Amino acid sequence: MRALRKTDRGPGAELVEIEIPTPGDDEVLVRVHGASICGTDLHILDWNEWVDSRIATIPMTFGHELAGTVQAVGDEVHHLRPGTFVAAETHIACGHCTTCQTGRAHICENLRILGVDTEGAFADYVVLPATNAWVVGDRIDADVASIMEPFGNAVHATFGTGGGEDIATNVVAVIGCGPIGMFAVGVLRSLGAFKVIAIEPNGYRRQKAAEMGADVLLDPSETDPVAAVLEQTNGAGAEVVLEMSGNARAIDQGTRMLARGGRMSLLGLPDASVVLDLNDQVIFKEARLQGITGREMFRTWQQTTTLLSTGRVDVSPVITHRFSLEKWQEAFEATASGSSGKVILMPEHEG
Amino acid sequence: MRALRKTDRGPGAELVEIEIPTPGDDEVLVRVHGASICGTDLHILDWNEWVDSRIATIPMTFGHELAGTVQAVGDEVHHLRPGTFVAAETHIACGHCTTCQTGRAHICENLRILGVDTEGAFADYVVLPATNAWVVGDRIDADVASIMEPFGNAVHATFGTGGGEDIATNVVAVIGCGPIGMFAVGVLRSLGAFKVIAIEPNGYRRQKAAEMGADVLLDPSETDPVAAVLEQTNGAGAEVVLEMSGNARAIDQGTRMLARGGRMSLLGLPDASVVLDLNDQVIFKEARLQGITGREMFRTWQQTTTLLSTGRVDVSPVITHRFSLEKWQEAFEATASGSSGKVILMPEHEG
Amino acid sequence: MRALRKTDRGPGAELVEIEIPTPGDDEVLVRVHGASICGTDLHILDWNEWVDSRIATIPMTFGHELAGTVQAVGDEVHHLRPGTFVAAETHIACGHCTTCQTGRAHICENLRILGVDTEGAFADYVVLPATNAWVVGDRIDADVASIMEPFGNAVHATFGTGGGEDIATNVVAVIGCGPIGMFAVGVLRSLGAFKVIAIEPNGYRRQKAAEMGADVLLDPSETDPVAAVLEQTNGAGAEVVLEMSGNARAIDQGTRMLARGGRMSLLGLPDASVVLDLNDQVIFKEARLQGITGREMFRTWQQTTTLLSTGRVDVSPVITHRFSLEKWQEAFEATASGSSGKVILMPEHEG
Amino acid sequence: MRALRKTDRGPGAELVEIEIPTPGDDEVLVRVHGASICGTDLHILDWNEWVDSRIATIPMTFGHELAGTVQAVGDEVHHLRPGTFVAAETHIACGHCTTCQTGRAHICENLRILGVDTEGAFADYVVLPATNAWVVGDRIDADVASIMEPFGNAVHATFGTGGGEDIATNVVAVIGCGPIGMFAVGVLRSLGAFKVIAIEPNGYRRQKAAEMGADVLLDPSETDPVAAVLEQTNGAGAEVVLEMSGNARAIDQGTRMLARGGRMSLLGLPDASVVLDLNDQVIFKEARLQGITGREMFRTWQQTTTLLSTGRVDVSPVITHRFSLEKWQEAFEATASGSSGKVILMPEHEG
Repeated sequence: MRALRKTDRGPGAELVEIEIPTPGDDEVLVRVHGASICGTDLHILDWNEWVDSRIATIPMTFGHELAGTVQAVGDEVHHLRPGTFVAAETHIACGHCTTCQTGRAHICENLRILGVDTEGAFADYVVLPATNAWVVGDRIDADVASIMEPFGNAVHATFGTGGGEDIATNVVAVIGCGPIGMFAVGVLRSLGAFKVIAIEPNGYRRQKAAEMGADVLLDPSETDPVAAVLEQTNGAGAEVVLEMSGNARAIDQGTRMLARGGRMSLLGLPDASVVLDLNDQVIFKEARLQGITGREMFRTWQQTTTLLSTGRVDVSPVITHRFSLEKWQEAFEATASGSSGKVILMPEHEG
Repeated sequence: MRALRKTDRGPGAELVEIEIPTPGDDEVLVRVHGASICGTDLHILDWNEWVDSRIATIPMTFGHELAGTVQAVGDEVHHLRPGTFVAAETHIACGHCTTCQTGRAHICENLRILGVDTEGAFADYVVLPATNAWVVGDRIDADVASIMEPFGNAVHATFGTGGGEDIATNVVAVIGCGPIGMFAVGVLRSLGAFKVIAIEPNGYRRQKAAEMGADVLLDPSETDPVAAVLEQTNGAGAEVVLEMSGNARAIDQGTRMLARGGRMSLLGLPDASVVLDLNDQVIFKEARLQGITGREMFRTWQQTTTLLSTGRVDVSPVITHRFSLEKWQEAFEATASGSSGKVILMPEHEG
Repeated sequence: MRALRKTDRGPGAELVEIEIPTPGDDEVLVRVHGASICGTDLHILDWNEWVDSRIATIPMTFGHELAGTVQAVGDEVHHLRPGTFVAAETHIACGHCTTCQTGRAHICENLRILGVDTEGAFADYVVLPATNAWVVGDRIDADVASIMEPFGNAVHATFGTGGGEDIATNVVAVIGCGPIGMFAVGVLRSLGAFKVIAIEPNGYRRQKAAEMGADVLLDPSETDPVAAVLEQTNGAGAEVVLEMSGNARAIDQGTRMLARGGRMSLLGLPDASVVLDLNDQVIFKEARLQGITGREMFRTWQQTTTLLSTGRVDVSPVITHRFSLEKWQEAFEATASGSSGKVILMPEHEG
Repeated sequence: MRALRKTDRGPGAELVEIEIPTPGDDEVLVRVHGASICGTDLHILDWNEWVDSRIATIPMTFGHELAGTVQAVGDEVHHLRPGTFVAAETHIACGHCTTCQTGRAHICENLRILGVDTEGAFADYVVLPATNAWVVGDRIDADVASIMEPFGNAVHATFGTGGGEDIATNVVAVIGCGPIGMFAVGVLRSLGAFKVIAIEPNGYRRQKAAEMGADVLLDPSETDPVAAVLEQTNGAGAEVVLEMSGNARAIDQGTRMLARGGRMSLLGLPDASVVLDLNDQVIFKEARLQGITGREMFRTWQQTTTLLSTGRVDVSPVITHRFSLEKWQEAFEATASGSSGKVILMPEHEG
């Protein structure tokens, strides 16, 4: 089969022929229909410092956002059968550490990530633990199903570590409108937020946020976003801020635009440590800051399935490019261009 | 009556004679039985930069942690009468802003603080809004009732902005064992925490934490508290960290000793901005950081009353000094000494 | 002024001339713009047994769902002024009982109800405690503002005693589609419910539920609603059931159509005790049943204001009749007819 | 090996010799150290109507509360090894239904119960799914470990379907003090309840509740428990009621002794439908009633482990009898006598 592999601990990748893998007893073999490109995949391709410290084994196929058809199942797999169309949860949990056993498997103490710690999905086939295969159902378009994983990030950030009871009827700001931010705008709109404020310097992305339903668009390179959010809320601030940029300045601004008692969910990964004014922006305001990573297993997947299968959120504006495996270089260039939403590699795509 | 007043916008204070004030229609006049000294009062006495920017009107009587006997009530006060012994909630809320109306009056948008924005309690008498007078009940010793206010800070930090459902059966670390930290240790012990770890460089305070029921004492000047907490929890970290020091380094350490999915409540006020490793210590761990200020009105007061009136928490080890109003200078020196718990000014104290 | 008053402890009412009342120090005088008729008002008019035991003082003006313009304010009222358009929270709380002080003022231990325990609003003017006057804002049509009170019932039932975190992306059944049930359908639609199933035997009301956005309409006199809900949910049952009928059989059915771990909010008042199969329908399923009354003060009002002022819920299909005070008899007949939504008495209405 | 088996669909059981079973790939074989007798086991022995409809396959070994030593593990079991001492979660979940995947595996849609739907533990050996084997740790006495399962019922009822945030500092009533009620009293005491009121007609059991730390003992055959609880709470009622009796009258009384906004957790299984006054006792009070079954997997097990391993709860007063397998008849008589706490069958017990 074809597989896009890292063959060196340095920049670049190779599309090569390798053997189709065999699933273990509790695994499934999936024929990949689509595998979308994540920001992390750009880093793996370019091989930065963090990737060098994080990835142990080379050569390795990368890519982790995928959907496809079950081709074969291991001996202990009873609830899935060949022919079923599935998407993949990419956090592989051990199932028996304390964190798993208290219902927080997505932050498992022994967490492994598909396509980072295991063989990935930019290939014709991929093997998954059966537990990580989510049945998509026929009401979600197969051509968009690979984005259920990053869409799930947006859903998890929106609901937060609580139940998302602070979204409906409240003002929410989304900082950073890459694909996950774009998705979040759509999710917020569908959950009854009073007003969704999208903050993003890139005009192309701002436009996408508008298509997804943002009520207010702010360009932080032209407008002070803190002042603008306070103005939009009669001085009260946003009840919820979803931080998707990873920009240190934007994180600080997020705390400043937050209402008293508000919630800020942090999903964007800053490059370095971040300086915060805890006194005025957190303690006196009783703000709540929470880290968000991955997707709750599997509450988030059920929410994702509902939002997509009922058409409550239409993700088509975000899916901007599709390429065959052979055109992987164009696909990565499109992803890095700043003028794209989600880019999907489809092994059987023509062109 | 006697009143300890700031008469200049600079260091110092004067004990002077002034008129007994008259309560307004919805206020009560309280004869002060005890008024304890808070860290903020030290700053008001010494008049630092923050105080200079915060306090608008001089001359003013300061002091805000108090208990005493209602002496007179305003025309619109129907549920209190002269002779009732009360403690004071010191956050004066407007009652009609959005924050008040959603049950978060203690972080009111128009918040005023007793003894900071209004005439305070280091005096023979003080006037309170009737709403802020909490009936103490006869099962709490009148001589300790003035500490219900800072004890309430510890209770509020322990329960957090949620319901404190993460205390019972879990490991909790308390960073910084001034009086509020000491109180918190006692509260945690009474609420069924698995293990209470007290972290404090001052040996006198560590000893007090032990008297209040800490299971493990750590001196961060000698032991790496992060390593020690991880060791105490088989590598998992503390489910809850109560940050009471306001020390920037300790706050960073708090995030590092926190378990995946854990909660850190921030009550100590840092002098300046704080640098945090959000990636590894917050986002990937899905940690939750929350600011804590004041006391929930009046859930916290009911919890405080229960804990003190049933003897579940015995605060006597923390109350180390009592002085008459005349000896206010000795009282402030004891408070600043590092070898004291709570110091109470009692107008009718002999000596 | 004109006032529709109960003058006897029996059926009937009289429209009479009485003095315009004077507000007390913490009260406001409101010129009534609209006062809508509640099911309770029908009972007060007809004077059933429950009403006879509940109402202490006659003569009394009744009516409690109102909106109007502040005409005068008492001496202690500082945040409202003549000319402001307000709606009325009808639960008058004492503010100092344990229940009030823990943020549950709407179920105050000393609760009084406007127009039941005090002079009501079917009149040209009414006096309210200032605390109970909610500023409507100019984005809500004055002609619908009197229904904010019953709409708030629907909002409170939908969010439940928790945060409504179980609505978005889940299936919800509404049993009983009188005006509050109709409102609830609209609220659920706006909060991202996956599917809203409306259960109601009256065809007129079913049609209104459809207009408000119900996905599935069930007539329980023709279809077994339990079987139908299970079929609609692939056997899983509804995650949330809102019981608005007060019908004993329907309440039992509600428990049977509820999913494992689901929530049933009970707002409809049954005439008598109700028989439930606790074993199979509550205990083994870990169902949660919760009573709902009134509106949370004032979280529900803020949610109500958002939903109405942004147009997320359009209540116009529910408001079916308007009458002048003189035509009060026609108004009550329309309310009792079964072919009406909300009926509003408007003192200045022509005809 | 020896096994106590139902060999007929009628009263009685036989202690017989059968083959030691072999664990499947994801199962473990456990050598039973102790297996305690549950009320359900009495019903299985006596074979009532419910049992006849519930149990499909005979002959079958019964008994489900157990602890013992892993003797052998299946091929796919990697985190357990022979020699480990484990207790058993008795709810066997499918792991892939909607309910399991949203973290409510203990109420799985395809739930099977050990010793009811599968071969049980009144025997020398039993086979468990590896997932259901909980490592006990050496700080819990092996001789009490079989009661972790029913103790877990008490823990789950106490924490409720929320986080148990309503226990600390509040009044809690326990209705019915069989072994689970006795355990619940101990758990409540350790979690900081203000006052624990135990309601139980049997004097022996009331005495055990006292030994476990109840503050107030009520005999409902002599005292009106509703009036008594209201008196103990100055008329406010209990914030939490744990219903462990399954008695229809007691359930009704439970709703009447509940505070406004309070929580009643229902664990006791009534024989028939129950009549409730929903209007006054649930709806107007906004009471919350919730079913409780089994134990949350595995939050409850971690809480149980903490409470027992730290000595916060001492269960020794509740464990009143131990018998060898041969004396199973005496053991069942002791269980049924009303003068026992928990009775444990220990295969290697002498006598």
